Amino acid sequence: MSRVRVHNFAVSLDGYSTGEGQSLEAPFGHAGGRLMDWFFHTRTFRGMHGEDGGGTGVDEALAGTWADGIGAEIMGRNKFGPQRGPWENHDWTGWWGPDPVFHTPVFVLTHHPRPSVEMEGGTTFHFIDATPEEALRQAREAANGLDVRIGGGPTTVRQFLAADLIDRMHIVVVPIVLGRGERLWDGLEGIEQRFRIESVTTPSGVTHMIFERNREE
Amino acid sequence: MSRVRVHNFAVSLDGYSTGEGQSLEAPFGHAGGRLMDWFFHTRTFRGMHGEDGGGTGVDEALAGTWADGIGAEIMGRNKFGPQRGPWENHDWTGWWGPDPVFHTPVFVLTHHPRPSVEMEGGTTFHFIDATPEEALRQAREAANGLDVRIGGGPTTVRQFLAADLIDRMHIVVVPIVLGRGERLWDGLEGIEQRFRIESVTTPSGVTHMIFERNREE
Repeated sequence: MSRVRVHNFAVSLDGYSTGEGQSLEAPFGHAGGRLMDWFFHTRTFRGMHGEDGGGTGVDEALAGTWADGIGAEIMGRNKFGPQRGPWENHDWTGWWGPDPVFHTPVFVLTHHPRPSVEMEGGTTFHFIDATPEEALRQAREAANGLDVRIGGGPTTVRQFLAADLIDRMHIVVVPIVLGRGERLWDGLEGIEQRFRIESVTTPSGVTHMIFERNREE
Repeated sequence: MSRVRVHNFAVSLDGYSTGEGQSLEAPFGHAGGRLMDWFFHTRTFRGMHGEDGGGTGVDEALAGTWADGIGAEIMGRNKFGPQRGPWENHDWTGWWGPDPVFHTPVFVLTHHPRPSVEMEGGTTFHFIDATPEEALRQAREAANGLDVRIGGGPTTVRQFLAADLIDRMHIVVVPIVLGRGERLWDGLEGIEQRFRIESVTTPSGVTHMIFERNREE
């Protein structure tokens, strides 16, 4: 059965998964690179950007599983770009250059659909105005039996958690207090009861938490 | 130099250190025992209550340091009891029975001072209406050169952090989403920059974080 997975999703001690004031220069707003610093040093991240090297320890072991068996991604519009409201034009095709890192269909949730964009390397962005359930139906169809990744940002992950659609979630608790931005956990009281949780800390200072959904048997 | 320390202070994934609705039956409100479950199983906790046994692993190694070298505690009134506003009488002497676990002077921060209460075993409760700085001055004097523990709850720890008075802090991140209650980190954006932080996870599922204040040298 195709599973729904979250990977490499960072959250601060005070529960924020992105900062305030997203812009073209600051995809994570005032958080800057602080939430993802552990990731920037991994071989996986460097490889995504055509660079050699990078850590091969526990951070890498966990980061590196993000693409295995994934056939489609669903992301929120704020992960796709800093624009809000109706699109002024269709020039923006994401932060990831002409050959994005996804290499699968990517469904961007937006109240302002626009034509699909086929990029190099197998990534196609589809823009849909849909509930989590409907978006997942479309992504599953596109994934051809493979898993679907919920790529973020926090609003999107939160909506999929609230709808009880997530099977496996890799959360990375980063020991910083962001103070403002967008919270991951709001409205999810007791969500941990749906999961078995394993945690491990690494020398980068973060705590990885793997949430595996309890099986109903 | 006498240091100011926080120990065994639990916080949920969404940043709450106590639940909503504290009462005589529910010192942590709707959180119940969930924030402290890792602690209840330690030898230290059981020993506090005259019981044998309890875990002797990493949770215990960290929990067990709470009293070493401590000469006084400062706590908020909500840690002392569930009453609010003026005292109706002075019958309430805390949750800890006739011989409280502290065995030192304890300064209870309250806008409603009342006479000190000398308990068995060396614990004396003093009730003071004071700023963090003034409370610390009094506690240091009573501690006779030993360290001062900031005992909680979240408002008290937050106030002492905001006033930059804490030297060492043992925070325990518990993988639950409480949803409501009292937040620890509000107003403390960037607080991590004052500390070196080490983290370790344990089989109980929690992540212990030790914050050691950067030395100004």
